Amino acid sequence: MECILCGGTQPWDPFRYLCPSCLEPMVFARDARRRVFEDAKKRPLERYLDFLPLDAVNPRLDLGEGNTPLVPLYALAAEVGIRSLLGKCEMANPTSSFKDRGTAVAVQKAAVLGIEGIGTVSTGNMAASTAAYGARAGLKTTILLKEETPLSSLRAAGIFGPRLIRVKGDYGRLFGLALEIGRELGIWFMNSADPVRVAGYKLAGFEIFRELGDDVPDYLVVPVSSGGHFTGLVRAFEDLVENGLSDRLPTFIGVQAEGCAPLVSAFAAGRARFERLDKARTIAHAISNPAPPAGNSVLRMTRDHEGILVSASDREILAAQRLLASREGLFVQPESAVALAGLVRLGREGRIRPEGRAVLVLTGSGLKAPKALESQTIGVEEADIEDLERIIRRS
Amino acid sequence: MECILCGGTQPWDPFRYLCPSCLEPMVFARDARRRVFEDAKKRPLERYLDFLPLDAVNPRLDLGEGNTPLVPLYALAAEVGIRSLLGKCEMANPTSSFKDRGTAVAVQKAAVLGIEGIGTVSTGNMAASTAAYGARAGLKTTILLKEETPLSSLRAAGIFGPRLIRVKGDYGRLFGLALEIGRELGIWFMNSADPVRVAGYKLAGFEIFRELGDDVPDYLVVPVSSGGHFTGLVRAFEDLVENGLSDRLPTFIGVQAEGCAPLVSAFAAGRARFERLDKARTIAHAISNPAPPAGNSVLRMTRDHEGILVSASDREILAAQRLLASREGLFVQPESAVALAGLVRLGREGRIRPEGRAVLVLTGSGLKAPKALESQTIGVEEADIEDLERIIRRS
Repeated sequence: MECILCGGTQPWDPFRYLCPSCLEPMVFARDARRRVFEDAKKRPLERYLDFLPLDAVNPRLDLGEGNTPLVPLYALAAEVGIRSLLGKCEMANPTSSFKDRGTAVAVQKAAVLGIEGIGTVSTGNMAASTAAYGARAGLKTTILLKEETPLSSLRAAGIFGPRLIRVKGDYGRLFGLALEIGRELGIWFMNSADPVRVAGYKLAGFEIFRELGDDVPDYLVVPVSSGGHFTGLVRAFEDLVENGLSDRLPTFIGVQAEGCAPLVSAFAAGRARFERLDKARTIAHAISNPAPPAGNSVLRMTRDHEGILVSASDREILAAQRLLASREGLFVQPESAVALAGLVRLGREGRIRPEGRAVLVLTGSGLKAPKALESQTIGVEEADIEDLERIIRRS
Repeated sequence: MECILCGGTQPWDPFRYLCPSCLEPMVFARDARRRVFEDAKKRPLERYLDFLPLDAVNPRLDLGEGNTPLVPLYALAAEVGIRSLLGKCEMANPTSSFKDRGTAVAVQKAAVLGIEGIGTVSTGNMAASTAAYGARAGLKTTILLKEETPLSSLRAAGIFGPRLIRVKGDYGRLFGLALEIGRELGIWFMNSADPVRVAGYKLAGFEIFRELGDDVPDYLVVPVSSGGHFTGLVRAFEDLVENGLSDRLPTFIGVQAEGCAPLVSAFAAGRARFERLDKARTIAHAISNPAPPAGNSVLRMTRDHEGILVSASDREILAAQRLLASREGLFVQPESAVALAGLVRLGREGRIRPEGRAVLVLTGSGLKAPKALESQTIGVEEADIEDLERIIRRS
């Protein structure tokens, strides 16, 4: 593994992946070996195996992850003011979010190593994804939750049969503590910025490249929370250049919710390190991360590649969610809609080349966030059945 | 179109698809023309175009439907007592249910005909699917709902911006009335047993055939509500035989919830026509249909092809939902789990050949039915952060 910040390296260890000097999650290092796509394979894990920290793929662990649609957004391209806009529909993954990309790879790795216990610290998408793949692989899965997590938001992970533990105490400490306990007990807490997980996130990037006819988009727009997903996608496009498959990178655009945007603030101020926020307040809970584990790596990669970090307000996020549904037929969670909201803002500010092509990474299904949906105004008419034709005529 | 019951034919008309003598929804008739798969195409609508009532496909209306995973269920095969069991994951479609297969084709047809208004009578999966594709195609979409439909279950369809109308009065009349009003106003109510929709349902059948290496499963297990989905899947495998692509059919197994199983009762009694139920009571609301529009066609096809109609209790359905999640990592709605529940019951009764291969059609995501999930017991432990390691050790 290598550290994106200091360049330090060390061998991979599932229980120790933070750089000892920077405390940043490390990523798998590249070597000089030339890597290739296995186009004859159908499963993404097999097709892009050469770019993953795996020697082989056990098809029995497969839940059908990847091969997600890349859908052109004709109406919204005009809205943004760009020639071409597409949505990479990561909500089509088995548990309806991009997390499955990473979990699929991590669970392969766990099986090879004979690790019998896996876990995560999460309530939302990550919990469901880890529990689903854990169930599939017959692993004992432990999910650590915030004290106040309501039962209603546990069920969609709980149905997979993991061990659910609500933890009383400082939630900020839990991430580090889980890694410690995991080391002790042999439980791999495959959290959001785990290097194996991050390697799995690369595959959506490769798929975008292939679907665009072996080309990269001008803009790749990604919601940013822990920074793990963003890191994986940047590494994917770097891989393409390293391997001579592309001669350019996209402009990477990371988007945070205005109510919790520590990286956007740090980037705007030209700082290399973000400041931990005291409070966060946004409707986009799943990306509300006041201290993103891979945050400083995101700052570094964005600066190095001349990317953009931008935020969007809750109002803009909800408007974007509605636009994606009502104009394009795609229902995403607010945490995904933030990508469109950020791009709309950049378009308005004249920071997007109108002749460009942008891809929004749509990270999760709107069905994942029923609570947020209550903030959308939905109009319903009433009609007596005898009067129905008249009511329908009146439109 | 032709009537499955009486064999009568008439030209296709989106506003008149019930057989004038049997009142059963008609299906597209076959002619002697030899049809072929277009294997070079990626989109299912293009690949199987020759088997659809379309001359061409407008890719702009595509939301990425189809190409859903066929996942082997290793653990559950043993549970059922069968050599091989697989799940066709129709919940991977754009609005997380199989309905998109039919809506995708119907909306293509609407666009060709210049029909500007579409609609449906539904609250659940059908409403979301029709509204999503309607939004994508820029059509005015009207959704008619039961009087008592709560706002909470409307939102996931309402976000796409359709016109939502709650109708006071006899819901049983609404289906027929909607078709009448549609004829008058030029609104195509593309309901569950519409022949164009049913043609779209065939595509999952073709995909299963290709994924099994151009072979048919011994058993195809399908939840039955209106009968439209079942009809489409039967027609698909009939098409394969008609076109010389297969020399046999699967044994078709239709499964209903015990609390609403008018077709299972009629079939067991050897009757050609079902009796409308007065009351229905099951946790599987989306397949709780006391008078299935294509019910008599289902009875006829099942008898002709020596198929099986079986029911499962709510307890069995919930157990099956839990098994699919906790043993295989697949979270489906109760209305999908009923397929596994029915097969388990048949296995227990010795009605399944152990050396066979069965495919369960998993019709929709568990995220669609949060209410039903409340019937599942989910255990949560509590731990103080200081005590966490000890609690995790104790397992």
